[in-house]
Amino acid sequence: MTQKLKMGMVGGGRDAFIGAVHRMAARLDGRIELVAGAFSSDASKSRASGEDLGLDPSRVYPDYETMAAAEAKLPESERIDFVSIVTPNHVHFPPAKTFLEAGFHVVCDKPMTYDLAEAKALRDLVKSTGKVFALTHNYTGYPMVKEARELVRNGDLGKILKVVAEYPQGWLIQPIDAEGQKQAAWRTDPSKTGASSCIGDIGTHAENLGRYITGLEIDELCADFTTFVPGRRLEDDGNLLLRYQGGARGVLYASQVSVGEENNLSVRVYGTKASLEWHQEHPNELTVKYPDAPRKIYRRGNGYVSDIAKRFTRLPFGHPEAFIEAFANVYLEAARAIEAVKEGKPIPADVDYPTVEDGVLGMAFIATAVASAQNGSTWTKLVS
Amino acid sequence: MTQKLKMGMVGGGRDAFIGAVHRMAARLDGRIELVAGAFSSDASKSRASGEDLGLDPSRVYPDYETMAAAEAKLPESERIDFVSIVTPNHVHFPPAKTFLEAGFHVVCDKPMTYDLAEAKALRDLVKSTGKVFALTHNYTGYPMVKEARELVRNGDLGKILKVVAEYPQGWLIQPIDAEGQKQAAWRTDPSKTGASSCIGDIGTHAENLGRYITGLEIDELCADFTTFVPGRRLEDDGNLLLRYQGGARGVLYASQVSVGEENNLSVRVYGTKASLEWHQEHPNELTVKYPDAPRKIYRRGNGYVSDIAKRFTRLPFGHPEAFIEAFANVYLEAARAIEAVKEGKPIPADVDYPTVEDGVLGMAFIATAVASAQNGSTWTKLVS
Amino acid sequence: MTQKLKMGMVGGGRDAFIGAVHRMAARLDGRIELVAGAFSSDASKSRASGEDLGLDPSRVYPDYETMAAAEAKLPESERIDFVSIVTPNHVHFPPAKTFLEAGFHVVCDKPMTYDLAEAKALRDLVKSTGKVFALTHNYTGYPMVKEARELVRNGDLGKILKVVAEYPQGWLIQPIDAEGQKQAAWRTDPSKTGASSCIGDIGTHAENLGRYITGLEIDELCADFTTFVPGRRLEDDGNLLLRYQGGARGVLYASQVSVGEENNLSVRVYGTKASLEWHQEHPNELTVKYPDAPRKIYRRGNGYVSDIAKRFTRLPFGHPEAFIEAFANVYLEAARAIEAVKEGKPIPADVDYPTVEDGVLGMAFIATAVASAQNGSTWTKLVS
Amino acid sequence: MTQKLKMGMVGGGRDAFIGAVHRMAARLDGRIELVAGAFSSDASKSRASGEDLGLDPSRVYPDYETMAAAEAKLPESERIDFVSIVTPNHVHFPPAKTFLEAGFHVVCDKPMTYDLAEAKALRDLVKSTGKVFALTHNYTGYPMVKEARELVRNGDLGKILKVVAEYPQGWLIQPIDAEGQKQAAWRTDPSKTGASSCIGDIGTHAENLGRYITGLEIDELCADFTTFVPGRRLEDDGNLLLRYQGGARGVLYASQVSVGEENNLSVRVYGTKASLEWHQEHPNELTVKYPDAPRKIYRRGNGYVSDIAKRFTRLPFGHPEAFIEAFANVYLEAARAIEAVKEGKPIPADVDYPTVEDGVLGMAFIATAVASAQNGSTWTKLVS
Repeated sequence: MTQKLKMGMVGGGRDAFIGAVHRMAARLDGRIELVAGAFSSDASKSRASGEDLGLDPSRVYPDYETMAAAEAKLPESERIDFVSIVTPNHVHFPPAKTFLEAGFHVVCDKPMTYDLAEAKALRDLVKSTGKVFALTHNYTGYPMVKEARELVRNGDLGKILKVVAEYPQGWLIQPIDAEGQKQAAWRTDPSKTGASSCIGDIGTHAENLGRYITGLEIDELCADFTTFVPGRRLEDDGNLLLRYQGGARGVLYASQVSVGEENNLSVRVYGTKASLEWHQEHPNELTVKYPDAPRKIYRRGNGYVSDIAKRFTRLPFGHPEAFIEAFANVYLEAARAIEAVKEGKPIPADVDYPTVEDGVLGMAFIATAVASAQNGSTWTKLVS
Repeated sequence: MTQKLKMGMVGGGRDAFIGAVHRMAARLDGRIELVAGAFSSDASKSRASGEDLGLDPSRVYPDYETMAAAEAKLPESERIDFVSIVTPNHVHFPPAKTFLEAGFHVVCDKPMTYDLAEAKALRDLVKSTGKVFALTHNYTGYPMVKEARELVRNGDLGKILKVVAEYPQGWLIQPIDAEGQKQAAWRTDPSKTGASSCIGDIGTHAENLGRYITGLEIDELCADFTTFVPGRRLEDDGNLLLRYQGGARGVLYASQVSVGEENNLSVRVYGTKASLEWHQEHPNELTVKYPDAPRKIYRRGNGYVSDIAKRFTRLPFGHPEAFIEAFANVYLEAARAIEAVKEGKPIPADVDYPTVEDGVLGMAFIATAVASAQNGSTWTKLVS
Repeated sequence: MTQKLKMGMVGGGRDAFIGAVHRMAARLDGRIELVAGAFSSDASKSRASGEDLGLDPSRVYPDYETMAAAEAKLPESERIDFVSIVTPNHVHFPPAKTFLEAGFHVVCDKPMTYDLAEAKALRDLVKSTGKVFALTHNYTGYPMVKEARELVRNGDLGKILKVVAEYPQGWLIQPIDAEGQKQAAWRTDPSKTGASSCIGDIGTHAENLGRYITGLEIDELCADFTTFVPGRRLEDDGNLLLRYQGGARGVLYASQVSVGEENNLSVRVYGTKASLEWHQEHPNELTVKYPDAPRKIYRRGNGYVSDIAKRFTRLPFGHPEAFIEAFANVYLEAARAIEAVKEGKPIPADVDYPTVEDGVLGMAFIATAVASAQNGSTWTKLVS
Repeated sequence: MTQKLKMGMVGGGRDAFIGAVHRMAARLDGRIELVAGAFSSDASKSRASGEDLGLDPSRVYPDYETMAAAEAKLPESERIDFVSIVTPNHVHFPPAKTFLEAGFHVVCDKPMTYDLAEAKALRDLVKSTGKVFALTHNYTGYPMVKEARELVRNGDLGKILKVVAEYPQGWLIQPIDAEGQKQAAWRTDPSKTGASSCIGDIGTHAENLGRYITGLEIDELCADFTTFVPGRRLEDDGNLLLRYQGGARGVLYASQVSVGEENNLSVRVYGTKASLEWHQEHPNELTVKYPDAPRKIYRRGNGYVSDIAKRFTRLPFGHPEAFIEAFANVYLEAARAIEAVKEGKPIPADVDYPTVEDGVLGMAFIATAVASAQNGSTWTKLVS
């Protein structure tokens, strides 16, 4: 075994949700070790969080700038290999820029940046620094999502005609953002989350998932945004019609006020030869439907699945894997790329994590949806 | 028991699909008897069909005009009480008009007419003749759909925010219409089916179902129509965003080219207090979701369901009912109204079948969707 | 079309459950007409029931003996072709004997008789009279059950190793039998239902279903009977281990006190090459599982299903069929056999309804289970 | 945060399945660190495995005896806190004894020992040493299994009448044991696995799960064992009827030759007031059924679940957890007990991991099933 990769973290202090997920995901396979962090913009909270995590206090920093500078000065064998950025959206680009420029690889939560302009700037930075940049569109880490993509790539579905991506949640039906619930508050605050709440936070996962599986890119869209909860500053529900390049059509909707829905991301892809359906809440199965043959249920862990689905599988069939494992798969691939770079090799051609390019397309999708919604829900070409 | 009602049929000859369904539905409860018909525009085929059905040859007619005239001359105790019209769309209005004017009640397949103008004319005729007119939007006949409506009416869902109605089918992925398959041919022929194929044939069921459950009426919509199969003259896929009067939002899509989908009508209704979900292919269950309580699965036939769901139930729980029974429920209610009229009473206030008003709204929906789609998929107010 | 068959009914008066089911099933396809009946052992109730059903009062009889005698005297063109017996178990054999001896065909509800001795006597009578006798083990009427049998017959499952048949219901958790609920009262009364309640009423369906699909016959069994509700005279829960001739094993259980279960009959058949699973409450699907291939979901109404599954299908895929249609399939096949006999032909070799032989095996199964349970739940060879 | 606990491992070398699972489970929450191991009885393989895992070579031992002795000599701050035993069954007791006697806590895979005698001896040892001993019946680690137990404990189900526990797998349908597949070979070798294969390996999970949820203990059982694959030395299929103390009844079956089944453990518990159903392959849901109220679906991560289900939950609702997390919950609780002991406190009264007592009952269950099966599948009292 090569030495474990050393990870630093920006954000993810006490009370944060996604930081803990990133840490479990990074930890799961024993190839990555958290050694440093600036866990909060509040220095004392950062310190306390580092203590919770059993870190050496000297590696727990009051802010990310200090962290980047200090880590860069450590001997190569001690300093972090990469940083994981798990802050609210408006604090993605600044630390990403800082760490890339300081010579570190970056794993970053989605959506990639606060706006599209930052996304493009980040793309340029990643290119110019040559560092690894992985975006945690974690749902593409599920083995059966990878299987879906293989089926499309193999032509099993024929030409793709239609994509239906749904992402209803219900957790924001009450004005918990106004009442100070932390996760809700920043996600509905335009100064932190960006120009969109619902589509930016989860619609972008649905867009990414459809694109990952089909390879299709949106040509134009029509977006209807609604803010159902009074006083909320951004949309909490968004319904979109999509037209893909090449003629396929799409329906994509997301909601934060669909009461009783938990995290019900699903995708259906319809082709001329077959169709497929996948549900995030039952991730170990993939249903394929045919014009005149019995439906097939592909299940994770079987010998018949594709090599790529196998590569991202840890447990035998029937021993269900779920969210953490999918998330960990993004980390595994980022680690593989980082290890290659450390060894002076190029990033392997087959690494399978969402890239800065995916992030730019995701931010363009959000920007276009916002533009459409603000302009009377008119059809709008994907900005780029 | 009162005497069985006597039914005549227009259309539904050999090879027809929906005529046989209407006959089974009418027959199921033993309250309606088929005694006459003009089963085909081809007189010899009509005769053969009547023979198949064991009818008295003197009551099997070469065309519906002859039938209406001849039946009207029979003694009241012998002649039909109502006619069931199960022809292609362009032959709905003419026989409906003929039979209404000849003094007969009418049960008619959907969509109600060839176009909106005919629908309005039919509405006027039904009003002026005072006859019973029932439209077989059969999916509203399911007990658990009625239960869903009760939950909404009772306020269990709070204010309705969003309706998602999906109706994917896949049977038209091949150009079987061009190859002469009868069911496919007329449904894609604008001279017979009207200005829309997919939305007119099945999208209108989805619209009706959403309206039945929620009572919401569409204010404006945006429709994206696509004809995926080359050479087809009408859309085989339609995706719509809806804005309801009062502010609720909707997503409605239908397709005839969603490969491997059978008849996958479903509806989800999201309210401020709870949400519900129903799938036509598993019709005995209704799922209700809450913000912070276990989901509930309402199942047909239990003591806890509403009186109206009970009224349309024939079998105990766990003995599944399905399509025919739901269809038969439309006939049961039409029969109840017709029997009342025969007895000189008013139509009971609580009859529960789709009316000519529903048909006008359905045709307006189709017309609006077509108008939107033809005008660059722009937002279009519901025509009326 | 041939003339409709004329049906008489014994039992099935007001308040009865299964009589109405039989009538809907017989009526559905328009080939059978109810013309006579002795609907109750209470003559006035029989008369009232006949009136409800719109029958000619002269064909409504005070008891089945009178009915058999009177009908036999009617001209052949008027009298009933067959009788449907839908009484409690102890009133199966006597009318069956009476009508067979009077020259009528018989459709009879299950379990076939009060005890095994009657069953054997009935078998002899059916043989000696040459009449059609069909037993309404209705669950074998489902198209996907027939598909399951075809898969086994075709060898798709390889050699059958194991059968798991489950039939939990919960409707008898309260002592409603003691409180006089009619359906419950006779089913738990040994003088009417026979030596077993739960296994006799529903376990026998599970046994029949397993045998229908696999063709396997039980060699010996071990039965554990429990009466959970105090005061009840027969078992309300039965769990059995089975050993089939040829070495396959089985698990079969039934219950009337499994709270919240409705009518949850299911069967799983495990072979050396593949396995299958079917659930009565979702009857339009059949799941087939393989050692290393995606699971297949066979769905009723598709082109790929076997000819026999197609033959018993009325509606296109996605338009669900259910309990009534399966029940009607038994009637359809009985009608086909009766029509053949009426035309002087032999009963077609491929008729597919449960026979008097199935009934004998079913009664032997019940008797054996009772014997085992009464003898300390010891292993007991199938009595015959 | 307290210092991470230091774990050693016995077994779990290259090619082992369950060792990797234990390591992921131990690693997930960042509270346990693997620092030492004797990963194989082959010293060079042990060394290679240690290297794979990035361990200090001085802490990788050729055998467990050496390991126990060497670790015991290390300063308390360096040596392992506990050992995890993940070897085949016949190598559970010897290392458990060795490490307990050397002063270490033990986590051990199931079934606990080779036979019942060893189990009792181990119980005595655990008592006399006062060490923590946790048995990885991992399925009880699922939050919704804990919720199920809470519902039973709260009386929501009333008195328990019946338990149905099913555990079909299909992976041994081919003689892969005879062909040398490692996992299969030892599990079917009586010298390694013990007197039972199928019931010992997985039936014991089903027994444990039922007991965990209901608290019921078996009074007597009847077991039918079959070896379907020729040449196999132990049963690959076992079907059991159970009688619990207090009068409840049970059906329990397990199979390794149920083709196409993966790891389909499920449990249904029927009470006088309500029933519940849980499926390991969809672990985030728990269904509760009532006599006359809608079914409820309890879902992990919601505010309405019990405190204990919440305590073992890492992710919000809709972000599915699965096998690894449940396994990790056993480690979390063992860690909590070990930390308490390290701090000189008693083991907390509410620790929730399977204990040595559970192991004794599990081994008694296996021994009783074997005795019944060998004695003509007669009813046999639970040996103890």
